[in-house]
Amino acid sequence: MISWKNLDTLAVYDSFMALKGKVDLAAVMAGKSGAERVAAYNVPMPEGFTYNFAAKAVDDEVLSVLRELADEHRLVEKYEAMYNGDIINTGEKRLVLHQLCRGQLGKDVFADGVNKREFYMAQQAKADAFARKVHAGEIVNGNGEKFTTVVQIGIGGSDLGPRALYLALENWAKQNKTLKMQARFISNVDPDDAAAVLMSVDIPHTLFIVVTKSGTTLETLTNETFVRNALKEAGVDPSKHMLAVTSATSPMASSPDYLEAFFMDNYIGGRYSSSSCVGGVILSLAFGPEIFARLMQGAHEGDKTAANPDIMQNSALLDALIGVYERNVLGYESTAVLPYSQALNRFPAHLQQLDMESNGKSVNRYGEPVNYVTGPIIFGEPGTNGQHSFYQLLHQGKTIVPMQFIGYKENQCGMDQEIKGSTSQAKLCANAVAQIMAFACGKEDEDPNKAFAGGRPSSLIFGRQLTPESLGVLLAHYETKIMFQGFIWNINSFDQEGVQLGKVLATRVLAHETEDALKAYADFFEI
Amino acid sequence: MISWKNLDTLAVYDSFMALKGKVDLAAVMAGKSGAERVAAYNVPMPEGFTYNFAAKAVDDEVLSVLRELADEHRLVEKYEAMYNGDIINTGEKRLVLHQLCRGQLGKDVFADGVNKREFYMAQQAKADAFARKVHAGEIVNGNGEKFTTVVQIGIGGSDLGPRALYLALENWAKQNKTLKMQARFISNVDPDDAAAVLMSVDIPHTLFIVVTKSGTTLETLTNETFVRNALKEAGVDPSKHMLAVTSATSPMASSPDYLEAFFMDNYIGGRYSSSSCVGGVILSLAFGPEIFARLMQGAHEGDKTAANPDIMQNSALLDALIGVYERNVLGYESTAVLPYSQALNRFPAHLQQLDMESNGKSVNRYGEPVNYVTGPIIFGEPGTNGQHSFYQLLHQGKTIVPMQFIGYKENQCGMDQEIKGSTSQAKLCANAVAQIMAFACGKEDEDPNKAFAGGRPSSLIFGRQLTPESLGVLLAHYETKIMFQGFIWNINSFDQEGVQLGKVLATRVLAHETEDALKAYADFFEI
Repeated sequence: MISWKNLDTLAVYDSFMALKGKVDLAAVMAGKSGAERVAAYNVPMPEGFTYNFAAKAVDDEVLSVLRELADEHRLVEKYEAMYNGDIINTGEKRLVLHQLCRGQLGKDVFADGVNKREFYMAQQAKADAFARKVHAGEIVNGNGEKFTTVVQIGIGGSDLGPRALYLALENWAKQNKTLKMQARFISNVDPDDAAAVLMSVDIPHTLFIVVTKSGTTLETLTNETFVRNALKEAGVDPSKHMLAVTSATSPMASSPDYLEAFFMDNYIGGRYSSSSCVGGVILSLAFGPEIFARLMQGAHEGDKTAANPDIMQNSALLDALIGVYERNVLGYESTAVLPYSQALNRFPAHLQQLDMESNGKSVNRYGEPVNYVTGPIIFGEPGTNGQHSFYQLLHQGKTIVPMQFIGYKENQCGMDQEIKGSTSQAKLCANAVAQIMAFACGKEDEDPNKAFAGGRPSSLIFGRQLTPESLGVLLAHYETKIMFQGFIWNINSFDQEGVQLGKVLATRVLAHETEDALKAYADFFEI
Repeated sequence: MISWKNLDTLAVYDSFMALKGKVDLAAVMAGKSGAERVAAYNVPMPEGFTYNFAAKAVDDEVLSVLRELADEHRLVEKYEAMYNGDIINTGEKRLVLHQLCRGQLGKDVFADGVNKREFYMAQQAKADAFARKVHAGEIVNGNGEKFTTVVQIGIGGSDLGPRALYLALENWAKQNKTLKMQARFISNVDPDDAAAVLMSVDIPHTLFIVVTKSGTTLETLTNETFVRNALKEAGVDPSKHMLAVTSATSPMASSPDYLEAFFMDNYIGGRYSSSSCVGGVILSLAFGPEIFARLMQGAHEGDKTAANPDIMQNSALLDALIGVYERNVLGYESTAVLPYSQALNRFPAHLQQLDMESNGKSVNRYGEPVNYVTGPIIFGEPGTNGQHSFYQLLHQGKTIVPMQFIGYKENQCGMDQEIKGSTSQAKLCANAVAQIMAFACGKEDEDPNKAFAGGRPSSLIFGRQLTPESLGVLLAHYETKIMFQGFIWNINSFDQEGVQLGKVLATRVLAHETEDALKAYADFFEI
């Protein structure tokens, strides 16, 4: 039986906390020692990718303590318990099964009286068949014409993940002639969001997917009605244009208002739901189901890697351990995600939700307050754009922000050119590696305004190209990393009680059941 | 003569630092006291906007110390020195004149032998006339056809500000029938960025604006060549499609390769350049010059407000003071910008550059290290989207993140609908005010997982609608806020030496002049 313990109750805790200041990053990354670190500090990932952590403030002694921590905490066994169907989401008393959408790592998992792997596969098979019929012109609009565009109506996990994945592969799909339909997204309850999307699409040739597990999400139901009215105004029958992605018990599940319904369940949280039909329906429609299957295959390879107990063979586990070391030992509060790929421009926003909503907690998995810091603040923009923006603070500010670089040898569009002796892709990659070294080693200068202290840690995930498979690997890396960090902090990474209070108060404002400060604020907006 | 002093040398410094823990935000925001604060803690802004700071951890005692700090530091006089043409950018020994693009607050300012206000107005007049000719079909493509699209090629300040402002007004302009041309942006040296934009526009009907002050920005020149080749391939003459925005001394200034050139100068930094022809050309082409003029008029009103020495009449000054109090006294490291308007979806990214590149410094304006923390990390996404993402950490995480809410009574598109008893706009605003109160007051619960500690501070900027004028007010608010914070920390907010080292190392990588770790990293990418 695994025991779940708070981080500060582990036997290794004191030696873990004593690691502070052991490694002088600028010193060890200079000269021959630096080159050796870059060669040695690599963890293989699927699809030929690598997690390199040479520019993190670790050495073999630190790694040995991290290994000890992983072993004492039995992190990989906790992961096994998760994929074998233990109740890992203790707050809501639920299994955590998103990985079962992409493959089966352990035992058959039963819940609600069914084999859950079979359930998820059946839903994806339905999405698959539906998408093929749309692409083949067998499912058409009221005039017998093909659909050209698909719009997802969802918020949070029903929006950020699918949107980031769509954008990551949109140009790749164009280049590989597998972009079947253009995808757009409506999320915000701000009426200008839906209005702008509706103004930009050809409504009679557009399918709309309404995504809400509970069938009660305020923003999504509001936007659904908004869109239904727009469809009616355009003279088309909404029920021929709208799909539902919801739970089997939601009022949407068997409603004649939808052309088709696809089901999710309580064992996959919103921010982990890109692999379920929340991502599967829209991405299968946009790219074709075989592309979505390749994405899932990559994610499954990533999931398998996370089961390896050797920290030098398990990128997610090591990344998680280093992240906790940076947060709890070194005291860094934020982490920047810096993909050197424009296609990943919304991937940091997805990770912001994935990480901050999972691990932004103050109580352990039993609901008891913890005495140590937990999940970091996550932000990021693609490089090289960020270099001309917030990198100034990262280089010379008073605050150290650990970084995660992501880079690819090849671009997606195949439209590169050699200009002044190098391709754009070479310039892009040269900048990524130059930044890593500038952050790590800094530079002395007589003028303190031109000096760089260095000692700013970063890691690098790199490989050949951003493809469906390697995007799946990346997604699984971060999902399992965040899960491992939750295990280390002994928190529940799979609930989100922090979103409730605002909802309750907003409902009260709309019902005019407020007083004091809240009423005064509401008066500003004449609500 | 103004004296420039480090924050920790001020007479008021000890009483400032002693403010820690004086105000129990959750307590003062409850009940009648909270309602009184919401009514009292308002600073008027132009265009009928208001900066409300009731939910910040301040009271009259704190305000009195902040007032003392502003007075002793002579912050408004420093601002006067800036707009009257003192050398405020001490590192580069330059004046700081972006505000002169929108209006004149003080004396005539001369530099490079000319009256700078006249110089900026002449450039905008040129942009104005050029845009009118394009819209009237007097400037056309090689086939005598009108241009329909304009693409800005620039990075950092040549991209983020103009892009955020364009997106902020795109739907407003559609609704007000003043969207003259669609705008797109190419920034990243990643070849997929240019490729994707080029695939999405009708090249023969597109104008491209190349924006680089020095005429040497690697990313921009690379993307310019990329675009020139695409134009040639499309069978059109690049010189009939390309405009230059650069300095008068740049090689681009009088090149026959451009249809027209517009000039900026060394007294306006990239991140402050949206008001110069960096923003003026593209926004005049996209919306019409009269809309850009309205944006500038709003910003000028904001600039005027910032000259008011009364902190209760000067939103930027008070916001700056509260921000420094949160950073240096309360010890908060980050700030979240949360606009409840989808149109402002890239405004936080612009502020991220504006703030972090300006104040992410460790030396004072004379190049001496400072002993206190400086600029915060800035991140944000529009509400309500963020509520379903990172707000979990903001509500229940171990880290307190001060917040800045922005909200509007009216939407931009005029396509709202009443659904379940309230409009979408009402739902949007109800959520904003509900969040402010949830963060401030929290909620007790027997289950610690469902409890909210409260005490999480936020401010609110609100008004009628996001229009050109009110967007200008918002831009000026943040620019002057950040300037005041630079004055308080006694740093130079107008240089960015932190971006240099990475550039130097990237050039070395591309020239294969590297060794040790940098060479090993470059080998990963086969550069």
